[in-house]
Amino acid sequence: MNSEAHPSVPFVLSTRAGRTADQPIGFLIATAFANPHIISLAAGLVDYETLPSPETRELMTELLTDDAVGRARLNYGTTLGLPGLRAALLQHFAKLDGQTVGEFGASAEQIVITNGSQQLLALLTEALVDPGDIVITGWPSYFVYTGVLMTAGAEVRCVDMDEDGMVPEKLEKLLADIQSAGQLHRVKIVYIVDYHDNPTGTTLSEARRPVILRIVQKYSANHRILLLEDAAYRELTFEGEPPRSIRRYESNAEAGSHQVALLQTFSKPFAPGFKVGYGLLPRELVEKVGLLKDNLDFGTANMSQHLVFRAMTSGLYDRHVQVLRRRYHEKAKCMLTALNQHLGDFCAGETHWTQPHGGLYVWLTLPEYIDTTRTGPLFEQAIREGVLYVPGSYCYGPDPVRRIPRNTIRLSFGTATLEHIPQGIERLAKAIRKVDRR
Amino acid sequence: MNSEAHPSVPFVLSTRAGRTADQPIGFLIATAFANPHIISLAAGLVDYETLPSPETRELMTELLTDDAVGRARLNYGTTLGLPGLRAALLQHFAKLDGQTVGEFGASAEQIVITNGSQQLLALLTEALVDPGDIVITGWPSYFVYTGVLMTAGAEVRCVDMDEDGMVPEKLEKLLADIQSAGQLHRVKIVYIVDYHDNPTGTTLSEARRPVILRIVQKYSANHRILLLEDAAYRELTFEGEPPRSIRRYESNAEAGSHQVALLQTFSKPFAPGFKVGYGLLPRELVEKVGLLKDNLDFGTANMSQHLVFRAMTSGLYDRHVQVLRRRYHEKAKCMLTALNQHLGDFCAGETHWTQPHGGLYVWLTLPEYIDTTRTGPLFEQAIREGVLYVPGSYCYGPDPVRRIPRNTIRLSFGTATLEHIPQGIERLAKAIRKVDRR
Repeated sequence: MNSEAHPSVPFVLSTRAGRTADQPIGFLIATAFANPHIISLAAGLVDYETLPSPETRELMTELLTDDAVGRARLNYGTTLGLPGLRAALLQHFAKLDGQTVGEFGASAEQIVITNGSQQLLALLTEALVDPGDIVITGWPSYFVYTGVLMTAGAEVRCVDMDEDGMVPEKLEKLLADIQSAGQLHRVKIVYIVDYHDNPTGTTLSEARRPVILRIVQKYSANHRILLLEDAAYRELTFEGEPPRSIRRYESNAEAGSHQVALLQTFSKPFAPGFKVGYGLLPRELVEKVGLLKDNLDFGTANMSQHLVFRAMTSGLYDRHVQVLRRRYHEKAKCMLTALNQHLGDFCAGETHWTQPHGGLYVWLTLPEYIDTTRTGPLFEQAIREGVLYVPGSYCYGPDPVRRIPRNTIRLSFGTATLEHIPQGIERLAKAIRKVDRR
Repeated sequence: MNSEAHPSVPFVLSTRAGRTADQPIGFLIATAFANPHIISLAAGLVDYETLPSPETRELMTELLTDDAVGRARLNYGTTLGLPGLRAALLQHFAKLDGQTVGEFGASAEQIVITNGSQQLLALLTEALVDPGDIVITGWPSYFVYTGVLMTAGAEVRCVDMDEDGMVPEKLEKLLADIQSAGQLHRVKIVYIVDYHDNPTGTTLSEARRPVILRIVQKYSANHRILLLEDAAYRELTFEGEPPRSIRRYESNAEAGSHQVALLQTFSKPFAPGFKVGYGLLPRELVEKVGLLKDNLDFGTANMSQHLVFRAMTSGLYDRHVQVLRRRYHEKAKCMLTALNQHLGDFCAGETHWTQPHGGLYVWLTLPEYIDTTRTGPLFEQAIREGVLYVPGSYCYGPDPVRRIPRNTIRLSFGTATLEHIPQGIERLAKAIRKVDRR
């Protein structure tokens, strides 16, 4: 057989595969593995100590106690998800927005359950985006979604962010410019991580929400633009209630006119190990998303769905979210205190960081002459000091008319311990001062 | 807000979405739901009574007994899968082929764990197939994979099947014809369900395996064609040992020359509820498949992976496979006996069915004048009699030069009980005789 083999003959990859580049996250994970004593403020992972292990053991025993019922849970489910869970999630969405299901203006048939909300981001993009189509994201934005857009061949256009999230005037300006250029028909999605954003940690203010929605409606005169509301971190609000969802502002809209797909997940506010996410879609997209999901798996793991469903109905989920809110609040305060302590007097006016009210991230901006990129001196120096961060440059999409800033950093307090967070910030500050050659 | 909404403005779907049609499976499930007393010989689902519910309860308790270890299982994993599970699956592949891991000529880095093997079919297709590229399948073939090919925009070309599986001479002829037409560069994948095929129930004979491999090698002079070996039903062989995998015939091939991706799953031989599949890939495809999987979910549910891993290491998995082999053997015999009893004397020579040695399916061919399609008289009559089948017409890809037969049926003994199987066949035979107007 070997005589007929062709050792050097390559596979010819598809155009989509050709557009799919290495994710920076792979390099960061490899760096962390290669440096086991490093403190990682890079990983956007969850707090380890609060993962609900004993609780899950109990839930699973309950779920499988009756063998006949247990078997149904080990069997195939349906593509769009467990009906009971979909109904519970619709109630959950309505409750988070302070409405009844009736007021919320949606039905359980519009809920889709996926392998984490990441799969739903990918499915909605596959449903709508052809190569050359335009998708609008924040500047910066969640880099894994930018990867999805690269594979799809989308043109990424970006909108400035400030402490109140995406700036509506800038979104309107961009859409007006695209319209003037005769390219509005190519705009398919406006993507916003609107609670405790990854990477900036900011939340879209209450006042901006209806404004953003109206802008997307305004430019949807000839085809509907999807407003993709990624609310993965919504439930990890530290104190009080976060703003209502953008979707809440179209509760009263007529069926057939919804612009918003609202996405959430069990990975951040419960446990990533089940890989269950979900979303509320405009009715017109549900069937096609289901057919595209048929291609991938005809349904998310039934056992995982039953488990999170039981966690919701038993009250465990709500209790766990409260634990996590307190936990991340404590960790965020710890990181902000350390930043004040170690960088509070560093280049005032040119050094600043965001003040998250939830989620896992702080966004740090340094003076422009400090290069935070992977190939710059700070990244290497930080590793030598024993701390890892995400270069902010990874978080900017390839907007053709913008230049990527080289002086930002994404910090996460998700996975580092309360002991390591201040140590990590201290090391980072030390590295910054060492490379500061002004 | 309503004044600005545009109720009638549609989303404009992508080209991929436009190519993604309703799967026949959706219609069949809806028909079964609408007729609760129907006996379904249509669903390709697993036997219900043998689902390992008490066993899973025990495994889960073990997995989560130590809280610290349990937490790691509830956390994120890695995109390509749990390292221990990947190593165990490599050993599993080698063992099934009667080789040591060393002899098998592969490493655990080539094992990829996915959300069922369906996701791996989709990922490999995404990695290789551009619109207009050619993928070769059996005639008939697994219809969900044909759906994946439709979304990808592939041209599907088909090769005749007989009782020994895909006919090598026909594959060679097709490839030679494509080469003569100057289109060989467009052929990316040859897809074979080579054990207890879905839908035909046949197994590719031992003798044909190296022949098929050599043919694919021969036509890979300028670019490598992937031989996609879907072995989902391999472990459900009723008695004795099934043939070695096609991949086994390239164990000695040099690294960098492998043609075969060998796919298996835990869904059929263990439980579908965990949705864990896996495959051994040519080394050159692993990284790209991982990057494409990053877009979708950056890793299959970690908890599910730990659970099947524990099932393997504890011996439970092997024991359960033995239970299922006996169980499906009994169900297959039951179906074949009923077919003999109720259709043994019907139009001899024109009515025949396959004799599976494993898996879940029997493929029934009726006289040409009996239309088994969804719109034909038999399908309706069968529902009136109280039995549901898969019209064989759903199982033929849209090969542009072939006409789809309208006189075949896929029968499954997977989910129907031992009591219902003979009743179902009796009802089907009754329906056939009623519509027989010759």
